[in-house]
Amino acid sequence: MSDGWHDECGVFGIHGHPEASNMAYLGLYALQHRGQESAGIASTDGERIIFHKEMGLVADIFSEEILSRLPGHTAIGHVRYSTTGSSELKNAQPLVVDFESGAIAIAHNGNLVNAQELKRELEVSGSIFQSSMDTEVIVHLIARSRKERIEDRIVDALNQVRGAYSLLFMTRDKLIGVRDPHGIRPLALGKMKGEGGTVITSESCALDLIEAEYLREVEPGEMIVVDARGTHSHRPFLPAVERFCIFEHIYFARPDSIMGGTCIYEVRKALGRQLAKECPAIADVVIPVPDSGVPAALGFSEASGIPFEMGLIRNHYVGRTFIEPQQSIRHFGVKIKLNAVRGVVSGKRVVVVDDSIVRGTTGRKIIKMIRAAGAKEIHFRISSPPTCYPCFYGIDTPLRRDLIAATHTREETNTYLSSDTLGYLSMEGLHACVPNGKTTYCDACFTGNYSVPLEKEESGEQLPLFHASVRV
Amino acid sequence: MSDGWHDECGVFGIHGHPEASNMAYLGLYALQHRGQESAGIASTDGERIIFHKEMGLVADIFSEEILSRLPGHTAIGHVRYSTTGSSELKNAQPLVVDFESGAIAIAHNGNLVNAQELKRELEVSGSIFQSSMDTEVIVHLIARSRKERIEDRIVDALNQVRGAYSLLFMTRDKLIGVRDPHGIRPLALGKMKGEGGTVITSESCALDLIEAEYLREVEPGEMIVVDARGTHSHRPFLPAVERFCIFEHIYFARPDSIMGGTCIYEVRKALGRQLAKECPAIADVVIPVPDSGVPAALGFSEASGIPFEMGLIRNHYVGRTFIEPQQSIRHFGVKIKLNAVRGVVSGKRVVVVDDSIVRGTTGRKIIKMIRAAGAKEIHFRISSPPTCYPCFYGIDTPLRRDLIAATHTREETNTYLSSDTLGYLSMEGLHACVPNGKTTYCDACFTGNYSVPLEKEESGEQLPLFHASVRV
Amino acid sequence: MSDGWHDECGVFGIHGHPEASNMAYLGLYALQHRGQESAGIASTDGERIIFHKEMGLVADIFSEEILSRLPGHTAIGHVRYSTTGSSELKNAQPLVVDFESGAIAIAHNGNLVNAQELKRELEVSGSIFQSSMDTEVIVHLIARSRKERIEDRIVDALNQVRGAYSLLFMTRDKLIGVRDPHGIRPLALGKMKGEGGTVITSESCALDLIEAEYLREVEPGEMIVVDARGTHSHRPFLPAVERFCIFEHIYFARPDSIMGGTCIYEVRKALGRQLAKECPAIADVVIPVPDSGVPAALGFSEASGIPFEMGLIRNHYVGRTFIEPQQSIRHFGVKIKLNAVRGVVSGKRVVVVDDSIVRGTTGRKIIKMIRAAGAKEIHFRISSPPTCYPCFYGIDTPLRRDLIAATHTREETNTYLSSDTLGYLSMEGLHACVPNGKTTYCDACFTGNYSVPLEKEESGEQLPLFHASVRV
Amino acid sequence: MSDGWHDECGVFGIHGHPEASNMAYLGLYALQHRGQESAGIASTDGERIIFHKEMGLVADIFSEEILSRLPGHTAIGHVRYSTTGSSELKNAQPLVVDFESGAIAIAHNGNLVNAQELKRELEVSGSIFQSSMDTEVIVHLIARSRKERIEDRIVDALNQVRGAYSLLFMTRDKLIGVRDPHGIRPLALGKMKGEGGTVITSESCALDLIEAEYLREVEPGEMIVVDARGTHSHRPFLPAVERFCIFEHIYFARPDSIMGGTCIYEVRKALGRQLAKECPAIADVVIPVPDSGVPAALGFSEASGIPFEMGLIRNHYVGRTFIEPQQSIRHFGVKIKLNAVRGVVSGKRVVVVDDSIVRGTTGRKIIKMIRAAGAKEIHFRISSPPTCYPCFYGIDTPLRRDLIAATHTREETNTYLSSDTLGYLSMEGLHACVPNGKTTYCDACFTGNYSVPLEKEESGEQLPLFHASVRV
Repeated sequence: MSDGWHDECGVFGIHGHPEASNMAYLGLYALQHRGQESAGIASTDGERIIFHKEMGLVADIFSEEILSRLPGHTAIGHVRYSTTGSSELKNAQPLVVDFESGAIAIAHNGNLVNAQELKRELEVSGSIFQSSMDTEVIVHLIARSRKERIEDRIVDALNQVRGAYSLLFMTRDKLIGVRDPHGIRPLALGKMKGEGGTVITSESCALDLIEAEYLREVEPGEMIVVDARGTHSHRPFLPAVERFCIFEHIYFARPDSIMGGTCIYEVRKALGRQLAKECPAIADVVIPVPDSGVPAALGFSEASGIPFEMGLIRNHYVGRTFIEPQQSIRHFGVKIKLNAVRGVVSGKRVVVVDDSIVRGTTGRKIIKMIRAAGAKEIHFRISSPPTCYPCFYGIDTPLRRDLIAATHTREETNTYLSSDTLGYLSMEGLHACVPNGKTTYCDACFTGNYSVPLEKEESGEQLPLFHASVRV
Repeated sequence: MSDGWHDECGVFGIHGHPEASNMAYLGLYALQHRGQESAGIASTDGERIIFHKEMGLVADIFSEEILSRLPGHTAIGHVRYSTTGSSELKNAQPLVVDFESGAIAIAHNGNLVNAQELKRELEVSGSIFQSSMDTEVIVHLIARSRKERIEDRIVDALNQVRGAYSLLFMTRDKLIGVRDPHGIRPLALGKMKGEGGTVITSESCALDLIEAEYLREVEPGEMIVVDARGTHSHRPFLPAVERFCIFEHIYFARPDSIMGGTCIYEVRKALGRQLAKECPAIADVVIPVPDSGVPAALGFSEASGIPFEMGLIRNHYVGRTFIEPQQSIRHFGVKIKLNAVRGVVSGKRVVVVDDSIVRGTTGRKIIKMIRAAGAKEIHFRISSPPTCYPCFYGIDTPLRRDLIAATHTREETNTYLSSDTLGYLSMEGLHACVPNGKTTYCDACFTGNYSVPLEKEESGEQLPLFHASVRV
Repeated sequence: MSDGWHDECGVFGIHGHPEASNMAYLGLYALQHRGQESAGIASTDGERIIFHKEMGLVADIFSEEILSRLPGHTAIGHVRYSTTGSSELKNAQPLVVDFESGAIAIAHNGNLVNAQELKRELEVSGSIFQSSMDTEVIVHLIARSRKERIEDRIVDALNQVRGAYSLLFMTRDKLIGVRDPHGIRPLALGKMKGEGGTVITSESCALDLIEAEYLREVEPGEMIVVDARGTHSHRPFLPAVERFCIFEHIYFARPDSIMGGTCIYEVRKALGRQLAKECPAIADVVIPVPDSGVPAALGFSEASGIPFEMGLIRNHYVGRTFIEPQQSIRHFGVKIKLNAVRGVVSGKRVVVVDDSIVRGTTGRKIIKMIRAAGAKEIHFRISSPPTCYPCFYGIDTPLRRDLIAATHTREETNTYLSSDTLGYLSMEGLHACVPNGKTTYCDACFTGNYSVPLEKEESGEQLPLFHASVRV
Repeated sequence: MSDGWHDECGVFGIHGHPEASNMAYLGLYALQHRGQESAGIASTDGERIIFHKEMGLVADIFSEEILSRLPGHTAIGHVRYSTTGSSELKNAQPLVVDFESGAIAIAHNGNLVNAQELKRELEVSGSIFQSSMDTEVIVHLIARSRKERIEDRIVDALNQVRGAYSLLFMTRDKLIGVRDPHGIRPLALGKMKGEGGTVITSESCALDLIEAEYLREVEPGEMIVVDARGTHSHRPFLPAVERFCIFEHIYFARPDSIMGGTCIYEVRKALGRQLAKECPAIADVVIPVPDSGVPAALGFSEASGIPFEMGLIRNHYVGRTFIEPQQSIRHFGVKIKLNAVRGVVSGKRVVVVDDSIVRGTTGRKIIKMIRAAGAKEIHFRISSPPTCYPCFYGIDTPLRRDLIAATHTREETNTYLSSDTLGYLSMEGLHACVPNGKTTYCDACFTGNYSVPLEKEESGEQLPLFHASVRV
């Protein structure tokens, strides 16, 4: 749905595998849900870095011929979603540049909050910028570091940035993964079975597809260097409180991925169970908004005893460019993706479970559709608290004024959605369900407590003008 | 999954709507599950018939510009799946030809069993064939009829063919829908709300998308003529026993469609409940093979009391051409579409529910995948009887020798699949769950009782050589 | 230039060569000037006929992969230009159909004048038409013939048509070439060097590229049958007066082709010399409109003693779709293809030689352009008589009312063109320069003496409505 | 022909025109002969710089829609040819970057000989490189300049580079054109008629197409700044001896362009006349290798009295990707572009005139082809001296060892080509024919006297490794 939050990136790196770029291709394929706008792979044959990136889906971009031109035992890849304004190839990653020490490729999931400030400083001292990615700032800082070893240059650079970053770097002989001290975005470490090969990637589901073993998460503030001498962990940054993105548990991650030691699917079911306790409803059936609402709806059903049904059917053949040609029936919106199953909802009191509400436009259409299919009552249940604040750590969110929960009371939202009742999960309920222990979370989208202080511009509503040139 | 049965077509026709081709576009979009290989729309402005057809998905083929070149108040459309051998544009429909009375467009869902015979006779009397579609035979017969009215020509033609057909015809002033006397393939009648407009289409889900009202099914042997004088029903054929394709209920139709007065979703849940009764299993969890196995798995869970979980996650971003580049991990097959959720199946006794088994190759991989995710036991349950015979009435099925149930005992199949136990629904169980009353079914794929006698060649294993020329 | 006459087709057939479709590809490439809209090749492996056709240029359509799917020792190919209205793939050739005797492929250069009449008769007796090509009529007549041998069926069919046709037919074991009794369109016979292989094609330049030997022209009314028993000539039609298209000499054929025993280049030079005698000019320089006017301009220069220069430069990088975006300088027209060389024309009295004038719009722009580059006087000389009548024998010409010479006197045309003087070649001059002897010519475009009587509709201005359906 | 020298770029800039990007589109179209690999346009609306660049031909890249997204009164454009290794979009121009003062776009024709050295220095001080264009070096130097005005920054930067450059810069309010002090590559100044608008572009033929007036050449070492205050000329560099590329006269420039005050066509004719004097031949006919050899062949004919004929016909329908599919006739090479006119050369003693010989492979095929068409003798005449040295100033030339004249004597070359005699123009003859007066020339490709001293690596045969990363 376009009316949702979008994770901005997924990354995948592998070292020590004879078909590194093939593995990267498969890994990105499994991470496609983290970004569908562009994708790229860079590999190294030990001499040069070769790369290919394009707008589009992984499976559409990479042919056997293109992959055959990406040789070597080390590769990194990236999938990207971005806002419309900067939907351009020049912002696709990995970003590959030449600098003093040779070539380097970088793939970034996250967002820097002081990129604009650093960019200005770098420009003043003579740097040029060819993209509108904050990632370009990191590369400049690496190039300007006076350290010799690439690891030290990277640390030098990252000591100057603030924000969320799960980063992969590749030089002609090294794969380096770094997670910011708060550990805002995920990063997992894995190992190919048998002959070896080390993998660092956003989610464990990418490991499953290539039949690699999930070892553990890269720790907040940890730098992992993989080269001919093995895999080494470093702790080059000052320690900080972990602030893992709680929304990965709610929506972004694939349900078959493991984060914080727990399967995401299980977390979402728990959210649904908790939701049923906090916001019960007297109803005949519980239906999810597919596919993201399914585990929470199952949990709601389990806790409430109300039967679960797939009352909304998803059309899988969306194609590249659905047009809404007609004048007589306007605003298809979600109808082209979902249809209500009359046999399930007609004459019933229906609980509809979704993971979150952003603008509310999609929810309103879904409720209208279920009502049209004959539902007697509709109780909308959300397996997270109201999202009231934009994210500045790597997620594409609307402006605050466009978040319905930021500008409407629950009652007003319920009226807008035309649901009979509307229930959100509580903050306490949310925190009770996500894996706890040493992990603490960033929940700024619900609370406005931004774990990393923002630049002045970013705390406001407007995205700053990062770039004075635009590609069409 | 490529290892499945494929419905060969969906049809959509509308008369009396100012944006007829736009409605046809939306209708075909909702019918995309019935055919993803090619699509086409023909419309008439009252003078000429204009058409556009292409290989690919509906949403990729039709742009606003193309739709704007298809004016008029009447349109018919078609989506097609076909076997590899004849995957060519020349076989896309609607087929539009000029003949004595002007131009006619035809869209066909089904398969004629005496097409080869008729083709030979037509050739002997001087006809030429430009496609390998049996539909072309019907058009020749219409053109050769000595009747004057198009309705009479169509009846003349259809009295000579045997087999399954749900047909739409369009002339410059008429929309005509016909269903064969056995009513093998579905065809539904609907009505646009408000200003009118009559729709005839394969499934009611196409009516939902355009917010049309579902009126009823076109009856077996019925011909519906829609023109300026209204909508008229005719019964031009000798009555025959209804033989509706029972597999529409099991797999082909969308769960939100209504057939035989019942929502398909409900029928499938009933199949799952019956399956639980006939083939119980002592297990911890019931999981479906998504998406087709979901309703039956819910029914199985309901009847057995074993909890339902989404233990297999589907990757929606398949793209056009997934390649399997690598040598080290061969045979990805279903792994690129599905992944098992470790948290759901690990350490569990798992019931896996699917709608049918064709070759068995997909099932085998799914079971391997679930086993690799830690399942302790796997009980494979199929919500239909063993499929032992190919279909000759419009479904693309493998040769008999490739149907695993035709050549292996249940025990052998279970061994091949590596499941712990394997259970199929019984024929009696199947018939007990589908809508009964006046409807009787074609179940030849299970029983070999072909409702319409076959030509000699077709009863054998080999598909006859229908065409001496091939397009690449 | 769009303001010109367009030859509608080129054909190429080869029998007995191990890479028949590769040879057809090369042959069509050399015939590309005869049609740039679509191209197709059909080959036979002795069992089936396989074909591929597409819109576009030969070199863009055929990849190695596509050619590899066109196996066999016999192949025919076709390039097509057509009027906008019927620019569609369904009209691309070869046309391949199945009929009583198996499959047949046909490639046609020419136009039938009684196609409409025959179509109506065929429709009345039950035929259907799927294209708007008159060629489809021929195939129907072949299929309806009661003769047994394909040669006899072809003769049967062609005895019923009137008009211009140079035809190639291919069955699974034969290549057959036929030229209509008047021999209106060209057809040449050639032979591969060494191991053999017989070629029949529109122009000898196609033989040059594949290093085949030019043997002779196929005679008017001759049918050449090539099969395993050799190459045999037949004369199945009543003899008729030869009426070879005189415009092939003036414009259509490539200058390096041989027709009537003479190199076209030499004929065009002779036309230029004759033009200099008939319409002398006192001038400083002779320049051609490239490329078609070059030989005639050289002849004019030779006969007049006025130096020849390339005063107009042609831009070869036209690309597929030149747009004329701007508002300030409208009507680029020929300027995007040609530019005047100031150094050649400035301050000079210039003779500009072109092969013909159709609408006059291009000539007007060329003269304006040369004038703007500083020419003192411009004497426009045309190496053919005024074209006053449309062609109905296979050339795409404007309606009579759009031919400037049909509606304006020479003086008025000169005024319109804004040339200082305008001179055309005389009919006598033209006939004196083309190869004479037994050949006589169709010069209907100059005289209106149509060599084959027209159907009523065609003699009028309007092209008849051949087809009631249109593809977009 | 692939066996030739390729000019690497053409540039076009316009300021003060309401349809600046449309004008740039047309200008680039007229400069397409200077580069067919990629093209780009950047425009400014006074706030931002917007750009679009793609691989391919100008007319294929720019649609009306794309041009409409390039608003503003100022635009610059670029066409590029480059060697295979760096045929990538990242090297397409204009290069648009953000730096301290805002955004800047740059378009470059030429080549810097100390780019590698400067790149290394820049990298040492922290710069990153994202392309393999030497142009990127210039942008870095501009960004690092401590001057305030963009003009001063540009001068600062260019004072550090050595080599050939005709450069256009665009900021949000200025168009700046600069030609290196030696004036190696061309650059012309023009003016739109009427309402104004200043144009700076590689060749005057781009002015002709948009009906702009040719004013004069930009002088070596001149910087022209166009902004709201008018057009101002600056001389910021130390004066140097002019070294205009003599090969522009011989081959690169379009014959209708004016350079050094003389029409290129006239210069080439003079070269042909001189050639006839220096290397006469007793022959029956003079034919050019089209199209580049035409003016020189006309000059040769004029001086020798031997008649000029178009004995080689060029096939204009090359398409994008001609394949040479067949095994029996290998190595089509030039045959797919040219065919000999038998009627012109058969039985004749033929002088063939071409502008230059690079590897000799094309010439050899042409001579073989003319011989096969029946020529009795072939006298190959080249309107330039033997090319023995690669160019390092912006032309894509083979390595020295691949230049046939560098490794073979004239006699050996004649034997290789299989011509009867071979004649080159003398250096003196060449210099006598090009426009003289104050202009002096770079003739390093003939003499090895490189006008700008080379870096060590470049003087050798090997192109240095400029970039450690490669895009596929």
